[in-house]
Amino acid sequence: MKTYTIGIDFGTLSGRCVLVDCENGREIAEAVCQYPHGVMDDCLPGGKKLPPLYALQHPEDYLQVLRETVPSVLKKAGVSAQQVAGVGIDFTACTLLPVDKEGTPLCMLAQYADEPHAYVKLWKHHAAQPEADELNELAAKRKEPWLNAYGGRVSSEWALPKILQILREAPAIYHETARFMEAADWLISKLVGKEIHSLPFAGYKGLYHNNAYPANDFMTALDKGLDGIVGTKLSENIIDFSGPAGKLCPEGAALTGLTVGTPVAVPQIDAHAAMPALQITGAGELMLIMGTSSCHIVNAEIAENVKGICGYVKNGVIPGLATYEAGQAAVGDIFDWFVKNGVPAHYKEEADNRGINLHTLLTEKAEKQAVGETGLIALDWFNGNRSVLDDSQLSGMILGLTLSTKPEDIYRALLEATAFGTRMILDALQFPVSTIKVAGGIANKNGLLMQIYADVLDREIGVCQSTQAGALGSAIYAAVAAGVYPDLQQAAKAMGTPVAKHYYPNKENHKAYQKLYTEYVALHDYFGRGGNDVMKRLFQNA
Amino acid sequence: MKTYTIGIDFGTLSGRCVLVDCENGREIAEAVCQYPHGVMDDCLPGGKKLPPLYALQHPEDYLQVLRETVPSVLKKAGVSAQQVAGVGIDFTACTLLPVDKEGTPLCMLAQYADEPHAYVKLWKHHAAQPEADELNELAAKRKEPWLNAYGGRVSSEWALPKILQILREAPAIYHETARFMEAADWLISKLVGKEIHSLPFAGYKGLYHNNAYPANDFMTALDKGLDGIVGTKLSENIIDFSGPAGKLCPEGAALTGLTVGTPVAVPQIDAHAAMPALQITGAGELMLIMGTSSCHIVNAEIAENVKGICGYVKNGVIPGLATYEAGQAAVGDIFDWFVKNGVPAHYKEEADNRGINLHTLLTEKAEKQAVGETGLIALDWFNGNRSVLDDSQLSGMILGLTLSTKPEDIYRALLEATAFGTRMILDALQFPVSTIKVAGGIANKNGLLMQIYADVLDREIGVCQSTQAGALGSAIYAAVAAGVYPDLQQAAKAMGTPVAKHYYPNKENHKAYQKLYTEYVALHDYFGRGGNDVMKRLFQNA
Repeated sequence: MKTYTIGIDFGTLSGRCVLVDCENGREIAEAVCQYPHGVMDDCLPGGKKLPPLYALQHPEDYLQVLRETVPSVLKKAGVSAQQVAGVGIDFTACTLLPVDKEGTPLCMLAQYADEPHAYVKLWKHHAAQPEADELNELAAKRKEPWLNAYGGRVSSEWALPKILQILREAPAIYHETARFMEAADWLISKLVGKEIHSLPFAGYKGLYHNNAYPANDFMTALDKGLDGIVGTKLSENIIDFSGPAGKLCPEGAALTGLTVGTPVAVPQIDAHAAMPALQITGAGELMLIMGTSSCHIVNAEIAENVKGICGYVKNGVIPGLATYEAGQAAVGDIFDWFVKNGVPAHYKEEADNRGINLHTLLTEKAEKQAVGETGLIALDWFNGNRSVLDDSQLSGMILGLTLSTKPEDIYRALLEATAFGTRMILDALQFPVSTIKVAGGIANKNGLLMQIYADVLDREIGVCQSTQAGALGSAIYAAVAAGVYPDLQQAAKAMGTPVAKHYYPNKENHKAYQKLYTEYVALHDYFGRGGNDVMKRLFQNA
Repeated sequence: MKTYTIGIDFGTLSGRCVLVDCENGREIAEAVCQYPHGVMDDCLPGGKKLPPLYALQHPEDYLQVLRETVPSVLKKAGVSAQQVAGVGIDFTACTLLPVDKEGTPLCMLAQYADEPHAYVKLWKHHAAQPEADELNELAAKRKEPWLNAYGGRVSSEWALPKILQILREAPAIYHETARFMEAADWLISKLVGKEIHSLPFAGYKGLYHNNAYPANDFMTALDKGLDGIVGTKLSENIIDFSGPAGKLCPEGAALTGLTVGTPVAVPQIDAHAAMPALQITGAGELMLIMGTSSCHIVNAEIAENVKGICGYVKNGVIPGLATYEAGQAAVGDIFDWFVKNGVPAHYKEEADNRGINLHTLLTEKAEKQAVGETGLIALDWFNGNRSVLDDSQLSGMILGLTLSTKPEDIYRALLEATAFGTRMILDALQFPVSTIKVAGGIANKNGLLMQIYADVLDREIGVCQSTQAGALGSAIYAAVAAGVYPDLQQAAKAMGTPVAKHYYPNKENHKAYQKLYTEYVALHDYFGRGGNDVMKRLFQNA
């Protein structure tokens, strides 16, 4: 009899559940549930208006996903609950909520229904930027040892700035909170009937580095109100992927329609869950997720700070390996900016007449050019530089403009600049990268872009069709948790998705790009490493 | 009884004649004659096709202008020929033709009617670029002493490259040529009945520096065929503005309907003739002509090479002073490039709906910004840098781009970059500049641009309405030649046009621009003076 696992991907707007055949990873059934409350960035359910930059969620929505989608996939597939060997989930992060001693989210208590800080703070809640700035300044001043492990900067999206905002703006809520929990951990706790806190969320988003949070004297220097938070409101009982999170408890079984005792995997961050789904489980294997921005996630044997790389967690994705994160703060966003702001009406007309969009038109035109033909070079820092300079005050640059420069010339230079930015990251890694796999919408849409990456990097690039990679990855983690496979590598090999399309470097193009990359590096270092801080000065004066 | 002079401006497509009241410079009558042959860039009158980059004219057209326009202004004004005290002309330059021993243009001889090289080479005949390159390379290699007086580079528009092209491609024409003449000099010779060669044309366009042409050993090193050209095909009998060119001869009187013996002024280059028309006759006074490119013409007491300045001629415009030329290779052209290539459809729509053009729309939006608010800075080298770097392989750059950058931000940065470029030129001059007057279409059209120049330069800027400045300037030269005024200064004071609009520097803006200019200079020197030759490498590889 066949064995199945269930993986559920909790995204920003919905939860997506897949039932997967453990033998080959084939998706047998799928169900999607939109969150009833969606992203609350305007008002609370009771109508209370929210300040700017808020992005909240309701934990009830996550339960609704379980209630609806799990029975649905079983029914669609005609598979019994007994055939489901395990369950796994992946989640956005850091998506954080305060719970009371019973583990009940404070927002579910009637008295806090109109208190914004009682709700889930979604990853993209950006209202804690002042707290993040304060935290970064203090940590840098004190030379906190963990700061470099996080690339020298803590994002306002991470746990501690969000917690600090609650303390400052809603001290009663802070006081009432027994634990701050990642939504993923809270949900798994409901399923297994005991409180769990998982390593990837704590490690990548919670400043839990080398088995410890920042020390109490740092916390109290940041705010006296944080005194004693570690070990109380922040649990130090962190579990990794060496075993399952637990087994389905009666309440979890009732929620899902599955059998009590079904193994439940430790939850994973959504982007990272894609790694086993794309069969990326070995040291030196890199996953590049390209969207509005780019995220580089790469496994390594070593576990040491790498200058310019955002952060790493040992055992955070693959047991036995450290997995590093790096990123480019804008990629697709740059191309979109250009199409919206820099392409003239007669191009729009041409595209409209041919029924194609401007990206396609510009790509077609740019594809005909030889490497270097435009005489342009650009710096891809339109949203600052995340890796390897970690400086949000850097900005974009285009050089080589003449009266003959055409829009497609600039478009191509921008595509190339993002490839050079990725190469800078690869060059910064202090360990070999053997494999590069790319996922994300623009990777599948723009073949020229992928060929440029292959040519610039002089590497084979595998492009994955990855719309379901999170959910499939969760199902793979579930298969390991259930003991269907002895380890993640073997599970991924059997159940993961192979590369859909390969791009191979063109040696002539690579040679030409070597010259351009040398120019890029010189400009990168001149403007980014103190040769001329004009970008920062302009940014600060603007 | 009133006294009048006539000034005739020979432009690219037509001749414009004005009859001017010597007392106050008021224009009494005007007549325009389009050249019947116009610019011949496609074929000769007989139908012979021309190679690319050719721009020829027919000298008969200039005579036609005299025949039509002079009687016309007299008739319109009801002024008798006896009341015309003098005649002056200004002309495009270098606009060169070969004539035989009798002074007849070779193209007017039947046997050469189908020979392109027998015709007038208009200033914008660009087919002699290979000859100019060869000349520049040789002169630099030999460290020719005159090269620095011309800013280190000879333009393909100037006389010697054009002559060399004739020698190489039509040796029979070269052989048959008794003199190479500027069209202005040829026309004045017809009017006064004797051959003349004037200083401004020889000095600014003919490499006649410090009373000498390049030495014969340079000429023969360039091409053995040029042996002996100086003193034969190139006249060394050069006249300046210390007296009139001569008096109207019977043939000249017949051509124009004026009286035999009427004084005729030494001709002037069209741009330079605008100086007295705009009352710019003193040391330290600068005229900035802004169009597709910019030309800076400034008078000084000294007469020495100024590093980075294109060239100078002593007595070339104002007797007793040296007049320097510098320039920016693209100004209005950059703004036009941006409007054509870099402004999106919804801006076009907004402009169309409001019945304004994109320049006006972008200026309106940019006008609302504070200095530095956009966080952008640009280098204005979209067509290379003429002054002070004299490098055609430099290119444009825009820095400070973010995902929030708007088209008007870039437009403003481009306006500002051209102002910074002008300030670099002013800073390079080794003598004080007391007055800045601006003429040219965009100066009158774009008030924001002029205010930016005033703020960047921290100088009062006088904008002149100058559509007739060439013709009026010629009439002023005529008044001096006729002895109506004792010198050009007094003639210009009485007859020239005062400034139409003043722009005064805003001190706050200037302070903010000081910071930006410091950034501009650092980038200018880094990319233009060897810090990083990336622009040249990209240019050479493109």
